[in-house]
Amino acid sequence: MLNILITNDDGIRAKGLRTLIEIARPFGNITVVAPQDPMSGMGHAITVSRPLRLNLLKKEENYQEYVCVGTPVDCVKMGLRIPLENQNVDLVLSGINHGSNASSNVIYSGTMGAAIEASIEGVKSIGFSLLDYHHDADFMQAADFMRKIIADVIETQIPRGISLNVNIPKAKKEDIKGIKICTQADAHWVEEYLARKDPWNGDYYWLAGEFVDGNVSEDSDIYALKQNYISIVPVQYDLTAFDMIEKLKHLNL
Amino acid sequence: MLNILITNDDGIRAKGLRTLIEIARPFGNITVVAPQDPMSGMGHAITVSRPLRLNLLKKEENYQEYVCVGTPVDCVKMGLRIPLENQNVDLVLSGINHGSNASSNVIYSGTMGAAIEASIEGVKSIGFSLLDYHHDADFMQAADFMRKIIADVIETQIPRGISLNVNIPKAKKEDIKGIKICTQADAHWVEEYLARKDPWNGDYYWLAGEFVDGNVSEDSDIYALKQNYISIVPVQYDLTAFDMIEKLKHLNL
Repeated sequence: MLNILITNDDGIRAKGLRTLIEIARPFGNITVVAPQDPMSGMGHAITVSRPLRLNLLKKEENYQEYVCVGTPVDCVKMGLRIPLENQNVDLVLSGINHGSNASSNVIYSGTMGAAIEASIEGVKSIGFSLLDYHHDADFMQAADFMRKIIADVIETQIPRGISLNVNIPKAKKEDIKGIKICTQADAHWVEEYLARKDPWNGDYYWLAGEFVDGNVSEDSDIYALKQNYISIVPVQYDLTAFDMIEKLKHLNL
Repeated sequence: MLNILITNDDGIRAKGLRTLIEIARPFGNITVVAPQDPMSGMGHAITVSRPLRLNLLKKEENYQEYVCVGTPVDCVKMGLRIPLENQNVDLVLSGINHGSNASSNVIYSGTMGAAIEASIEGVKSIGFSLLDYHHDADFMQAADFMRKIIADVIETQIPRGISLNVNIPKAKKEDIKGIKICTQADAHWVEEYLARKDPWNGDYYWLAGEFVDGNVSEDSDIYALKQNYISIVPVQYDLTAFDMIEKLKHLNL
């Protein structure tokens, strides 16, 4: 039986995690290690200056569930080293995130942080996100597509260092047109800080903003999602900008 | 005069930040926005579920210093939008980090998270790290090289989306051989969790481990640093694994 580790960044109580567990369970032995609290925006953060906690919540045949006081990346690191110590792990699944991780969102995403961590550790991984921020979003519309992606990834050789960033449009099952392999769109957030006063007249701020698609290319994830396709971007953690190497070598550095 | 924003991930009291401020001050108007607490390992994390604070600590001619209750990426976002609102910012400097951010450390690094955030926002940026974790490390041995790198970057066209990951060997000034443009080495951490008991017999864990260089290529940062060169890796935030796009298109997805 396959050994599958599941995590997310919306926390152990999130509906998206429960849907992913339901979809993944028929594929093998499931170990869930999910954060105690919501961890949106945690990117690839790890906990180094505080101790970590990992507590078993549930154990039954082919299923165990732990809650972790840590980030999504901590969940993957702890999951592989404590409950799954000395075991071969076949797949790490992360999500289903409440909200888009397309385009540059991948950088800030705890969901994708967890998937990327698995790829660094040599385990195949998929991060799933639905373009619906609602806590009660309907994650089952794309369930058949997700089963197909998981089954295909299990059968496919994927090099170490590559994870898959899967984003699902907010659409009814019958309106989802299919799956496209995409590039990361060059879109971005336009942000501002909203200032508030606390009861002692001190300033504090909330980060707010909107995502601007701009003029994205036709091979990008944002473009595919707008056409109601599920987008898959293969993601690597080698950040080297190879194009720049020769250019910089010509500098006077 | 140039407008320069400085941040770090070791927090506002870190010696490395003070050295970077000292080195950068002759280059222009300096705005420091640094985290209140140490933020090592925060990667590209942003604060979304709690309010942020930004407090002015010091203001004098061509210099202002703020402390931020947030991550290094929050510091860059807030710095550009609050004290430097509506101003053209020429350069973001991050560091000098106490410890290496070479190879895959770039992914976990708050220092580089801040530099990458600047590159997303279209501002030139450099993250500096010294391969010495000591809180009282001697950051001045490489000061002449750092001045040269900053001066050269100011004069150079660098495309949006590219930041520079500069790592400095722990060596005396006279032993540093020069500067090399490098790729991100394919080296990694071998980690374990050390279990402890709290006074109520509850388990908790500390992440521990060592970085294993392995068989790194001669064009990589780790290799250059071992030869006592300063390494510069141009870093991009487009994570698309382009090599994989065609391979995945042939799948049955």
